[in-house]
Amino acid sequence: MFKKILIANRGEIALRVIRTCKEMGIKTVAVYSTADAESLHVRFADEAVCIGPAPSSESYLKMSNIIAAAEITNADAIHPGYGFLSENAKFSKICEEHEIKFIGASPEMIDRMGDKASAKSTMIEAGVPCVPGSEGIIPDFETCIKVAKETGYPVMLKASAGGGGKGMRAVWKEEDLQNAWESARQESKAAFGNDDMYMEKLIEEPRHIEIQIVGDSNGRACHLSERDCSVQRRHQKLTEETPSPFMTDELRDKMGEAAVKAAEYIKYEGAGTVEFLVDKHRNFYFMEMNTRIQVEHPITEQVVDYDLIREQILVAAGVPISGKNYYPQLHSIECRINAEDPYKDFRPSPGKITNLHLPGGHGVRIDTHVYSGYIIPPNYDSMIAKLITTAQTREEAINKMKRALDEFVVEGIKTTVPFHRQLMDHPDYVSGNYTTKFMEDFEMEEPKEN
Amino acid sequence: MFKKILIANRGEIALRVIRTCKEMGIKTVAVYSTADAESLHVRFADEAVCIGPAPSSESYLKMSNIIAAAEITNADAIHPGYGFLSENAKFSKICEEHEIKFIGASPEMIDRMGDKASAKSTMIEAGVPCVPGSEGIIPDFETCIKVAKETGYPVMLKASAGGGGKGMRAVWKEEDLQNAWESARQESKAAFGNDDMYMEKLIEEPRHIEIQIVGDSNGRACHLSERDCSVQRRHQKLTEETPSPFMTDELRDKMGEAAVKAAEYIKYEGAGTVEFLVDKHRNFYFMEMNTRIQVEHPITEQVVDYDLIREQILVAAGVPISGKNYYPQLHSIECRINAEDPYKDFRPSPGKITNLHLPGGHGVRIDTHVYSGYIIPPNYDSMIAKLITTAQTREEAINKMKRALDEFVVEGIKTTVPFHRQLMDHPDYVSGNYTTKFMEDFEMEEPKEN
Repeated sequence: MFKKILIANRGEIALRVIRTCKEMGIKTVAVYSTADAESLHVRFADEAVCIGPAPSSESYLKMSNIIAAAEITNADAIHPGYGFLSENAKFSKICEEHEIKFIGASPEMIDRMGDKASAKSTMIEAGVPCVPGSEGIIPDFETCIKVAKETGYPVMLKASAGGGGKGMRAVWKEEDLQNAWESARQESKAAFGNDDMYMEKLIEEPRHIEIQIVGDSNGRACHLSERDCSVQRRHQKLTEETPSPFMTDELRDKMGEAAVKAAEYIKYEGAGTVEFLVDKHRNFYFMEMNTRIQVEHPITEQVVDYDLIREQILVAAGVPISGKNYYPQLHSIECRINAEDPYKDFRPSPGKITNLHLPGGHGVRIDTHVYSGYIIPPNYDSMIAKLITTAQTREEAINKMKRALDEFVVEGIKTTVPFHRQLMDHPDYVSGNYTTKFMEDFEMEEPKEN
Repeated sequence: MFKKILIANRGEIALRVIRTCKEMGIKTVAVYSTADAESLHVRFADEAVCIGPAPSSESYLKMSNIIAAAEITNADAIHPGYGFLSENAKFSKICEEHEIKFIGASPEMIDRMGDKASAKSTMIEAGVPCVPGSEGIIPDFETCIKVAKETGYPVMLKASAGGGGKGMRAVWKEEDLQNAWESARQESKAAFGNDDMYMEKLIEEPRHIEIQIVGDSNGRACHLSERDCSVQRRHQKLTEETPSPFMTDELRDKMGEAAVKAAEYIKYEGAGTVEFLVDKHRNFYFMEMNTRIQVEHPITEQVVDYDLIREQILVAAGVPISGKNYYPQLHSIECRINAEDPYKDFRPSPGKITNLHLPGGHGVRIDTHVYSGYIIPPNYDSMIAKLITTAQTREEAINKMKRALDEFVVEGIKTTVPFHRQLMDHPDYVSGNYTTKFMEDFEMEEPKEN
């Protein structure tokens, strides 16, 4: 087993990893930028090394400084957390070269799954369902008709150079295809000077549902069921839950099996997540694979009694997994508490936390690196805490979240606590009837007088 | 179901009850003394009524004020928490008379189980093992020999007027009995002016192990396994755990069965605890029954996924229990964090908390009513927080407790955090080999330089 692990990250995830290391009797090294000297991850590690100034490129992304910190402190492994260098093939390779175990995917794996096209073709080889459509650019309208028929309506025509919804057309039946083809090409030409088009199946009422997997060095993998991350704003997840209210036992088995197949096909080692889009008919399609721990991993831990960080460390040390799959025994919800003003378009709100009171009690978990008096630097991600509630049913978990949010006091800055409080009362959230489009129509109500 | 519950208590247990009420959609009324105006239980209740000045006799024990508060606010039930009026038959009766549901035992039940002699004779009727010994005073030495033989050696001779260990003799064999009888009587006569003696079986290496039970209005009861509360200082519990490291499946079944038998015999309604002494041969003897929620109830909740306060409320509203027993799926430990100085004989240390940081993360639960800036009044119990860790094994729960205690920051007052931190490293605690005598020999090590 490792004697000392350096955590190449900051904030709550650095603290999260330190906690498990302490529980396992493994020494820890924190690294920090000058902006993070007062962060709890620095305080609770056995050693801490300053690796540069505030900009990430000068510190948390500066590979040479991190490797030097590991060598100075004799760390025999590095845990990258999420973000920063966690999915950087070069960093994984440099660790290998320095004989420091990188607790994450191999350079080859990161390259293979990090590139969208190569990930998709690998998944097709493995027999995992991917969004059907054209292979690259559609040369002419005749081919377009053929591809649409093969793909199955509805389809989405997309400008190859597109963005911001320009040059996109949803088509539900063949008789509308020609009009769409022509107008989309014209629009694309006008907007981007290029009318290359490709086609994908239109995913109706899409949900973002991901499967947590763990693979070991023997090439064996298991899954730990799903997380529903459909509540997103500009592709940023806001809240997650497990089980998904949209899930059936049959679909869970199918998606879990597909994710395990994907992991075993590529001989994936470590904790990873296979993200799928699921349409209203419960068809699911591979989106991407994350070769690292996810922000939302605690909800899985809560419902299957499993410490995912511990498992990452064990697998990296060569310990085989049991091979059995894990199914949710409870219901768990995470709300990401961000230093943002939900009444002002989620504008970041860094600064000093003048007063902090965290909720507690039965079924409440909090992962945070902040405290009363902490100054949130403006340089990094705005997440300051994860509030997780767990109960026997979804309804109870929501009720628990409401009362926990009511107890959550943060003064000095704005946070997303009021957003989550309103979300928990929203009829579409309460009914579990939400898709990735949910936030497009969501509007904050003005705060009530107290 | 109740519409509004008044909580006739303060501090963490008042907040604990409020939390569950909120989750169940029941309105809450807090009551408070003038010393507690700034407590969180006041802040988080829907309504709050001041019921008098700081001394408990003028507020939390003042039945007329509490009943008046319930009537003014139209509360239809009262939850008494623990301590104060929770086992007061008169208060239970007054609630009945005012048609306010008392969420606890009936006046008759409290009377019956509150008196030691009547509780013991009831348990003997029910077939629950009690500590054997003489029936009252032993008239002469001949009877003494006879009773000792029936009881079985070792026995304990005790002065009826005794206290503080005076007039007590442990006797291991008959040939030592006469000497002990005479010297104990002389000692008692000298100390108390009375030489009446009685006899009980000597419990060797006693452990305090209690069984949580819940009974419903149909006369049915179930048990939720045990809590080991042997780590006590002057009969005050300091830390508790479940399962007990001393427990076997067979003993759990036997003790659970005895506790359920006791509850069903007296048609007990609500949550209650049957406390037993267990000797080194795993014989167990009824000590007493608590007809209320216990301080240490959260560790049971953690290992069986069960909200005991919710169950109290449901049972009080007439909802029947399922009848099945609950067995620990995990291991959970509670440390009572008291405002006391463990380096100075646990002397109370009230005053202002100038800085508070609570631990968090996977497997950590905190129940507390205090916050940064809170002033602990000198009038009440010194407990300021309960820190509970839960994991798959006892070893993991201990390791988690250690790291959580390391993260626990309280400034401005002294607390028992350092005591618990040393306890978690004590070889007898770590091995699970401790009895109620454990604290007699425990000495704090001086704090290490940091």
